[in-house]
Formats: sequence, C-alpha cells, structure tokens
Amino acid sequence: MNSQNGYDIEDLSLGMSASFAKTITEADIVMFAGVSGDNNAIHINEEFASSTAFGGRIAHGILTASVISAAIAGRLPGPGSVYLEQKMRFCAPVRPGDTVHAIVTVKAIEVDRGRVTLDTTCKVAGRPVIEGEAMVRVDSRVKRESRAVAAQARN
Amino acid sequence: MNSQNGYDIEDLSLGMSASFAKTITEADIVMFAGVSGDNNAIHINEEFASSTAFGGRIAHGILTASVISAAIAGRLPGPGSVYLEQKMRFCAPVRPGDTVHAIVTVKAIEVDRGRVTLDTTCKVAGRPVIEGEAMVRVDSRVKRESRAVAAQARN
Repeated sequence: MNSQNGYDIEDLSLGMSASFAKTITEADIVMFAGVSGDNNAIHINEEFASSTAFGGRIAHGILTASVISAAIAGRLPGPGSVYLEQKMRFCAPVRPGDTVHAIVTVKAIEVDRGRVTLDTTCKVAGRPVIEGEAMVRVDSRVKRESRAVAAQARN
Repeated sequence: MNSQNGYDIEDLSLGMSASFAKTITEADIVMFAGVSGDNNAIHINEEFASSTAFGGRIAHGILTASVISAAIAGRLPGPGSVYLEQKMRFCAPVRPGDTVHAIVTVKAIEVDRGRVTLDTTCKVAGRPVIEGEAMVRVDSRVKRESRAVAAQARN
C-alpha cells in the first residue's frame, strides 16, 4: 500500500477484483449534460425520448463509464494510480434511477513497466451495460524504497 | 439528414470532420466528482495535488473524454446517432481552465451495418490530451424511406 491507501504493483495479483456502485439520478444526467456539453434530446427531453425505441430518457454512455473511474481511483488499484487507457463497449441503455455497479478485475500485470490491465464491466441489476478494459500505471513499493534510500545517501 | 438534423449514413464520407470545444472549469471538476463518485485527491485536493508530479489538480480523464460525446452527439454524426464503442488513451493532463477541443473524423463507413468509425482526438492548445476511436450506429435515409413506404402500403 502507498501513503494514500492505494495498492502498489507488488500487492496486486491476477483475478483480484473490486467494485463500486452508484445510482444514476436525473440530477446526474442534468449535471453531466452541463459538464460535457452533450445536450442530446435522448438524454434531456422526455417528450422526444419517449417517442424513440428507448421509450424514455437514457443516461449518457460516458456518464455510466465514469463509475469505472471511481472504482479504479477509489478501490483497485486505488489512490495514486494513473489512468492510461480505457476501451468500452456500450451494450445496453441505463435509465434514471438505475444503480450502476462497476466491477474491475486484474487481468494482466507488467511489474517492470508498472502497468496493470483490468477488465472493467458495468452492470445494472446483474446485466452488463458496459464491457471493456482499462490500463493503469501503479507505483512500486520496491522502487519507492530504493528512491528513498538513494535520496538519504545524497543527504 | 434526419429529422433532428443529424447525418444519415448516406451523407457521410471518409475524412469528414467536426469539432466541439469546452473549457473545463473548476465547477466541472467538482460536479464530475459528484456524478461519477470519483473523489480522488488529485482532482479535488489542491494541497495534495500540488505536492505530486502534476503540480496541482487535474481533470478526471473521463471528464475530458465527455467532450468527445458532445462532438459526436451534437455535430458528427449528430443527433440520432447511437454510441457503440469508445477507445481512448490519456496522453497528457488537463487542468482547470484548459479548453478541450474534441475533433472527430470519419475513418470507416459500413453502410450495410449502419456503422461508422471515427478518429477521436482531444487537444488543449494544439497538443493531444486524448487519442482514440469511436464506433457509432447511424440511421439510413434509404432504409427509413423504405420503412415509410412499407408502413403506408399496410394502411
């Protein structure tokens, strides 16, 4: 663990998993429209959205994906990790009131490069709404301790 | 064009490009922390963030990526398109006050499947901060007109 309670690369093993869940409310959709600039009618206009195949407003795909960011930054690998890549496939719509569970699972570890690949899935009521993969940079306890020893030797 | 002023698949050609720009403010970062649940110190704690290699708070990567969503949904292919996939690589940090330009460019068109692949790049002051690719489903004017004719024939 690092000083912020995040995992070091030496703490990780294949198959380790964590999750974070968040209900996507109407307020979240309105605020996300504001921060993104994406004011598409399917997200903010119930009259229009109810006339489409979706039958009502749906959350922005990237709003749902943002719960993955919370799972990675807050749980696994946790604070101190740096987000390098994210791939995602939007499989099903998310509606206001749905609770999104982001599940992240370690699928590859490159100790030398300090990089970890995670499977990233978001589910609503047990059904996938996003499937994808993230790559994250994680610090190394061994390298951090070597840096500290070298710094002491210089003083 | 469809009834919402979005492009049909027949309107698209390789190399077509559009952009949307948004300044990422402190308010955007605070609201994104709320909607995502990602309250990592690097985004919301200036005292901590200024002690790291970043030298201060940075925007969440997925907040920056949300500007791509606005470019796709609002400009190219525009309203009516359905987001299927997004891949992204975070290349450089974005700071409060930076203006993110999301540039989307048509790189492949599958008319039969109604799918378009777009190159998606976000730049700040001309330098890439996100590089990636999106796949989007787009309606077809030809198929829509056939559906209308078939519906009339049934009446």
